[in-house]
Amino acid sequence: MDKGLLIVVSGPSGAGKGTVVGELIKNKGYALSVSATTRSPREGETDGVNYFFKTVDEFKKMIADNDFLEYAEFCGNFYGTPLPYVRQMLDEGKNVILEIEVKGAFQVKRSLPEAVLVFLAPPSLGELENRLRGRGTEAEEVIQRRMKRAAEEMELFAEYDYIVVNTEVEKAVSDIRSIVTAERLKTDRNKNINFK
Amino acid sequence: MDKGLLIVVSGPSGAGKGTVVGELIKNKGYALSVSATTRSPREGETDGVNYFFKTVDEFKKMIADNDFLEYAEFCGNFYGTPLPYVRQMLDEGKNVILEIEVKGAFQVKRSLPEAVLVFLAPPSLGELENRLRGRGTEAEEVIQRRMKRAAEEMELFAEYDYIVVNTEVEKAVSDIRSIVTAERLKTDRNKNINFK
Repeated sequence: MDKGLLIVVSGPSGAGKGTVVGELIKNKGYALSVSATTRSPREGETDGVNYFFKTVDEFKKMIADNDFLEYAEFCGNFYGTPLPYVRQMLDEGKNVILEIEVKGAFQVKRSLPEAVLVFLAPPSLGELENRLRGRGTEAEEVIQRRMKRAAEEMELFAEYDYIVVNTEVEKAVSDIRSIVTAERLKTDRNKNINFK
Repeated sequence: MDKGLLIVVSGPSGAGKGTVVGELIKNKGYALSVSATTRSPREGETDGVNYFFKTVDEFKKMIADNDFLEYAEFCGNFYGTPLPYVRQMLDEGKNVILEIEVKGAFQVKRSLPEAVLVFLAPPSLGELENRLRGRGTEAEEVIQRRMKRAAEEMELFAEYDYIVVNTEVEKAVSDIRSIVTAERLKTDRNKNINFK
């Protein structure tokens, strides 16, 4: 029961992934995965804490070496989850949380089938729209585009292992903790237990 | 997410099944399955509460009608878990706990594959022997026979879905609660969820 668990928290933008993950990692048994990126560090960002900053060549070499659990290009920069870092944390017994997009989640499951995929859903699409509008910062067109994408992503929830509906943050966090506890108690993960 | 879950708690005699189950059913979302038996009611036992008391003919008709999740003969009497009763409780949204022997657990899984099998293990075989001896009521021969059987049963734990080591009752109860929470969040059990 000593190895940590890789938990992928994914779901549509606006479901509250950031808040829920922020609460989860307050517990010392949990660690947040640090991404690698080719974008330049911003003011106050530290290499190895916020991101692993890489050149495009370094990043491409990592891709060639299968050193990513998943990666994607976004606005001309690469972002990815480095596998060696995740493995090290798991070996230390930490539960590693990965907060990523829906597509990336499936990439992770292919690379590491023992990963646990949690779909974090808003209570409803109507409530998601309220939340996006409530921010008051997005143009109507952006909201429409996000809602369309959210509706598409919601249709994929059945491909995940678990679904947690984020009606209350505290409840969602406690649900994910229960999932982690239960997964670590699965006999599949404890074949070598010795009762002698 | 409305249907209850059938949780089978099984494991070697002396692992503490009775105590753990007793704690679990203090929560109103949980119900203990009531067994049917052909043995006579004892002083203070009520039909439908402690057992469903049946004649041998009634019991045999129930077997023929596939009305049992599992059944067994013990000291000349039949004991079994009536399926209609369990189904009714599950439909009411209750988590039904079944505390049974290792063999019976596999019978249940065959009848109702959505049942969740939890193997409750003592911390070690040495500790189990201490507990059996600590009762001070069993003859040496009985202890030896129980230890042999326990060792055989322990080898079957990998056939279960989960393993909970009963080092502390409170921790074991909380582990089983986490398992129930997680199982009810599985996407397999929530295919018809509607976010509209």
